Amino acid sequence: MKCIYPGTFDPITNGHIDVIKRARRVFDKVVVAVAKSDSKNPAFSLKERIELAKIATMSIEGVEVLGFDNLLVDFVRAQGTNVVVRGLRAVSDFEYELQIGYANARLMEDFETIYFMPSLQNAFISSSIVRSVLSHDGDISSLVPSSVNEMIQKLRNAQ
Amino acid sequence: MKCIYPGTFDPITNGHIDVIKRARRVFDKVVVAVAKSDSKNPAFSLKERIELAKIATMSIEGVEVLGFDNLLVDFVRAQGTNVVVRGLRAVSDFEYELQIGYANARLMEDFETIYFMPSLQNAFISSSIVRSVLSHDGDISSLVPSSVNEMIQKLRNAQ
Amino acid sequence: MKCIYPGTFDPITNGHIDVIKRARRVFDKVVVAVAKSDSKNPAFSLKERIELAKIATMSIEGVEVLGFDNLLVDFVRAQGTNVVVRGLRAVSDFEYELQIGYANARLMEDFETIYFMPSLQNAFISSSIVRSVLSHDGDISSLVPSSVNEMIQKLRNAQ
Amino acid sequence: MKCIYPGTFDPITNGHIDVIKRARRVFDKVVVAVAKSDSKNPAFSLKERIELAKIATMSIEGVEVLGFDNLLVDFVRAQGTNVVVRGLRAVSDFEYELQIGYANARLMEDFETIYFMPSLQNAFISSSIVRSVLSHDGDISSLVPSSVNEMIQKLRNAQ
Amino acid sequence: MKCIYPGTFDPITNGHIDVIKRARRVFDKVVVAVAKSDSKNPAFSLKERIELAKIATMSIEGVEVLGFDNLLVDFVRAQGTNVVVRGLRAVSDFEYELQIGYANARLMEDFETIYFMPSLQNAFISSSIVRSVLSHDGDISSLVPSSVNEMIQKLRNAQ
Amino acid sequence: MKCIYPGTFDPITNGHIDVIKRARRVFDKVVVAVAKSDSKNPAFSLKERIELAKIATMSIEGVEVLGFDNLLVDFVRAQGTNVVVRGLRAVSDFEYELQIGYANARLMEDFETIYFMPSLQNAFISSSIVRSVLSHDGDISSLVPSSVNEMIQKLRNAQ
Repeated sequence: MKCIYPGTFDPITNGHIDVIKRARRVFDKVVVAVAKSDSKNPAFSLKERIELAKIATMSIEGVEVLGFDNLLVDFVRAQGTNVVVRGLRAVSDFEYELQIGYANARLMEDFETIYFMPSLQNAFISSSIVRSVLSHDGDISSLVPSSVNEMIQKLRNAQ
Repeated sequence: MKCIYPGTFDPITNGHIDVIKRARRVFDKVVVAVAKSDSKNPAFSLKERIELAKIATMSIEGVEVLGFDNLLVDFVRAQGTNVVVRGLRAVSDFEYELQIGYANARLMEDFETIYFMPSLQNAFISSSIVRSVLSHDGDISSLVPSSVNEMIQKLRNAQ
Repeated sequence: MKCIYPGTFDPITNGHIDVIKRARRVFDKVVVAVAKSDSKNPAFSLKERIELAKIATMSIEGVEVLGFDNLLVDFVRAQGTNVVVRGLRAVSDFEYELQIGYANARLMEDFETIYFMPSLQNAFISSSIVRSVLSHDGDISSLVPSSVNEMIQKLRNAQ
Repeated sequence: MKCIYPGTFDPITNGHIDVIKRARRVFDKVVVAVAKSDSKNPAFSLKERIELAKIATMSIEGVEVLGFDNLLVDFVRAQGTNVVVRGLRAVSDFEYELQIGYANARLMEDFETIYFMPSLQNAFISSSIVRSVLSHDGDISSLVPSSVNEMIQKLRNAQ
Repeated sequence: MKCIYPGTFDPITNGHIDVIKRARRVFDKVVVAVAKSDSKNPAFSLKERIELAKIATMSIEGVEVLGFDNLLVDFVRAQGTNVVVRGLRAVSDFEYELQIGYANARLMEDFETIYFMPSLQNAFISSSIVRSVLSHDGDISSLVPSSVNEMIQKLRNAQ
Repeated sequence: MKCIYPGTFDPITNGHIDVIKRARRVFDKVVVAVAKSDSKNPAFSLKERIELAKIATMSIEGVEVLGFDNLLVDFVRAQGTNVVVRGLRAVSDFEYELQIGYANARLMEDFETIYFMPSLQNAFISSSIVRSVLSHDGDISSLVPSSVNEMIQKLRNAQ
């Protein structure tokens, strides 16, 4: 079975990788679906976010990274599945997830959302923490895969 | 008795209509008070949001729609009442509501906030979900009154 | 209009009185409905809890205190109304209230629950806090009406 | 793949059935694992709770009902899997689930908990609501499968 | 300065020890105050819980273990301080802590509660998890200090 | 011992002052550390926010106000301490605080965060409420120290 793991991935973190690996134990294929933009000003462009997600998941079999700019339920349907996976971290997350989940179920009747709990050491990592550390030139090596860290340093040096 | 139902209504949804109808069973008059702007960039202008709220509540007796740009407690006082009604949806909502409620009670001693619980099928609808679906050209017909849906399509075609 | 304010009231506190007074500003009549028992071992008997609620609300016009032992929706219907009021205090409260509210709405279609926010100084008073202070012979005079405090002292001396 | 759905099921509700059906779309086999007792005084005996769960899931293929009295991680391991599924309803639930999930992950390294979101109309049903309605001789037909309702009426008449 | 760390400690866990060590970095003396009983049936007697807390903190300087059966604010005052420390774990915790904190502040005006955040690996350990694992003869060695584990095994063998 | 109280302080409120006074009872020195900017558009410039914090804390001994623009853990280390204090208000706060706290603990191993609970009347004051009242020319005299109120009026008149 195939599942979709949607998000902004701005950038992809160890928390996301944790969820992807768990999803892969249950599903044959995981499509990491990078949304063009939830907020107005992502720190990384869609192209960069896709690239970072690809590098981060290169060594995990059965993972595909795709960008998308349409409604999630339309993207999911076009992928020939109805299963979306999400990671759960904190309460606010959970409330938001429920709201999104029920809204999607209204737009696509057989829409199914399945939640994975990341392991404890990854449970409090978020893209916004990574961006905050980056904005102060801090060390993100414990928050993202090493390949992501390297590519981010390159992107920043190229600016 | 008269009550004020304040919000951004960007745009008004089935969840708001649910709360308005419940408030009307208890209060003689409900003033839907459309705030000029909580955020910097509402999807609809104040004029459009007032228009959408008027169309949506046209068939409900005892409802008036007004825009306001001053402090809520000042608007409430000027309307000759001290009762504000709000809909409750999720935890974050609730926390935020408490904070706003206590802040208002500090600014106007006899300020009274009363909360209504929308029915289950409307409990997870929010303006932000509607805006998100709209931004991807999705179908919002199950999220807003049909008159609102029609007017929004007209507004978008006119752009 | 008439509303029902149900609870265990074990014992009635300043927080409950706060909600009753607010409900009375909106409703002509408030029925304080003392449930026989939610838990197995209330600190006060149903008879005592009704007595304490009567003493505490004696000076508030339009309030009636009744005990009940049937399903809340059946009691509400028998009282010729469909409106229940509740006080909101903390998050767990809110979640529980939602669950109870939706369950009741399933059992009685036009069931309406309206929530009042107690003033800040009463927002953290609960019957369980009062019982805990009482169990250590502490002073509850800032947590319950003085008439309730007096009657509780008499009840304890009579034991 | 096989998953374990543990709980007290006191009694099994439409909410549980919802989760079981969703789990079956993803897993080949779902073992409904009825815990001997989380609390001291379940309303139904372990034998009754197993019987009710069996009747409720009779028509769903790939579901097995088993009782267990050992540590969950030991039961899971003995069943030859490491995947546990849970339904998510409200915030307190979620917090509790996280705590249990992390505790279990400490006791069994590769322990995996996967959460399903029941559909909106089942999201606020709980066994405790059912027990509360039952204790007042209320109608539980909208809260549990009809076969469960019938068997519960028989059990109560037999008392 | 001296602080009081009150609780039921039924039994003391690695989470408690984590909080005690953090409190000791800030306060000269930490009094671990074992409440006679919050619930009706603690798993361990007051005497056993005090003994377990003493063994667990033996090697940490500046820690004293005392039992108490009066109101917390009275105990705190009798100890010649007004500072209570608590560990924070999850949301429900936090809400409950606020409620208790504000109730205590009402009973003792200069009452001060200070919260410590345990490290991530101890953030989801609780006495109730330990009791649950114990009740199924599971291994608690990763949840409590080794000295506590040994004494608990002795107590159980002695039964 | 010295502690750091970091924040945006946009502007400093009675809630912040409450936390500072409580921190001073436990710590010899409190450094109010004004972050250059968490959001893109603070209502007050860094220079103004530092000035307001200085005026507000002028009469409290042992308080120093500093701006900072680097990573918090780097600032804390440079100040020769490892203790950060924070005020706790509402649930969302708490979740966010935990996330930030664990992220910081990952970046600096012996990082210690200690939370203070403001008194009830200050528990629902926030800088965002103050900014909202200010934007509608409302009265903030019950939300900030009088010296802060005066300086803000001067700043606004000077515009």
